[in-house]
Amino acid sequence: MREIQISDADRRWNTPEKAVLVTSVDPEGKPNMIAVGWLMRANMEPPVFAIGINNKSRSGDNIAASGEFAIAVPPVELAQQVMYCGTHSGEEVDKFAETGLTAVSGKIVKAPLVEECLVNLECKVVKTQEIGDHRVFFGEVVASWVSEKEGKPLLIVGEQEGYELVYEEKGFRLGTVKD
Amino acid sequence: MREIQISDADRRWNTPEKAVLVTSVDPEGKPNMIAVGWLMRANMEPPVFAIGINNKSRSGDNIAASGEFAIAVPPVELAQQVMYCGTHSGEEVDKFAETGLTAVSGKIVKAPLVEECLVNLECKVVKTQEIGDHRVFFGEVVASWVSEKEGKPLLIVGEQEGYELVYEEKGFRLGTVKD
Repeated sequence: MREIQISDADRRWNTPEKAVLVTSVDPEGKPNMIAVGWLMRANMEPPVFAIGINNKSRSGDNIAASGEFAIAVPPVELAQQVMYCGTHSGEEVDKFAETGLTAVSGKIVKAPLVEECLVNLECKVVKTQEIGDHRVFFGEVVASWVSEKEGKPLLIVGEQEGYELVYEEKGFRLGTVKD
Repeated sequence: MREIQISDADRRWNTPEKAVLVTSVDPEGKPNMIAVGWLMRANMEPPVFAIGINNKSRSGDNIAASGEFAIAVPPVELAQQVMYCGTHSGEEVDKFAETGLTAVSGKIVKAPLVEECLVNLECKVVKTQEIGDHRVFFGEVVASWVSEKEGKPLLIVGEQEGYELVYEEKGFRLGTVKD
């Protein structure tokens, strides 16, 4: 073994990673969404997921103020729309209008579901952890939805064999696993 | 969309997931390791990773007491050894002895590196979050190591096309992406 910078170590193993959308609403009820790759299950019962959100993100402010978010799992066909959500700010654009994705009301939280996604999870924030440049929201899943259509979840992919690159921008590579 | 149980929604998208080893030492300095699938990056600078650990796990007690752990990223060839670490308790067995994996001293933390792994990250706990049945440790990476050998990281895989199942036990499926 040899010592190496963390950024170089990362390249050996940081893909594949799921790429999801996280929706939220601002105090006036206006919806926003962001692309999130920092996501993990964090409790079994009740089911809780953790998401890591940049402190500068408007979505983070929405989630902190409302105590709610939804996780929407996109199929690979939405690669370009997810990239748009990850590279633009909700302060400047209406991401639902710009991507054409459809906001649908959930059952419990005000953050919308995304109609075109494979899975949607309504989450209520049960804990928040400030780290440094990011904060981590822990959301208990209070309602779960699945699409009637099957599909392959979108992944952040590396350059290894076996993956299909579907859309690349600004060094971010989105795709899926080859059949 | 239709409403569904979270466990059924999960099956649509909870794989692939990285499967790593997390090492720790008890107060007497005895090393242990556990298989972890709940892992994410949680801060950019400094680099911080979050790991979710069952409250009943001895590794969790070790990490809480020592404030340290190491993340070791296994190649797919270690599927059986990783499964062993995930299905046995360090209270009953010496997992390094039983798996034949090699504990190597790190530079900064007492938790050992695993010689046979692709990447090893020494981490110091900067935050801890109790959730319910799990707790989440946030570890700042204080030293990073890579193997001289390349390899494919081990993944928790589903039943979708494109994945190679290498080892299965008790409903846990370990493998990788097909070339």
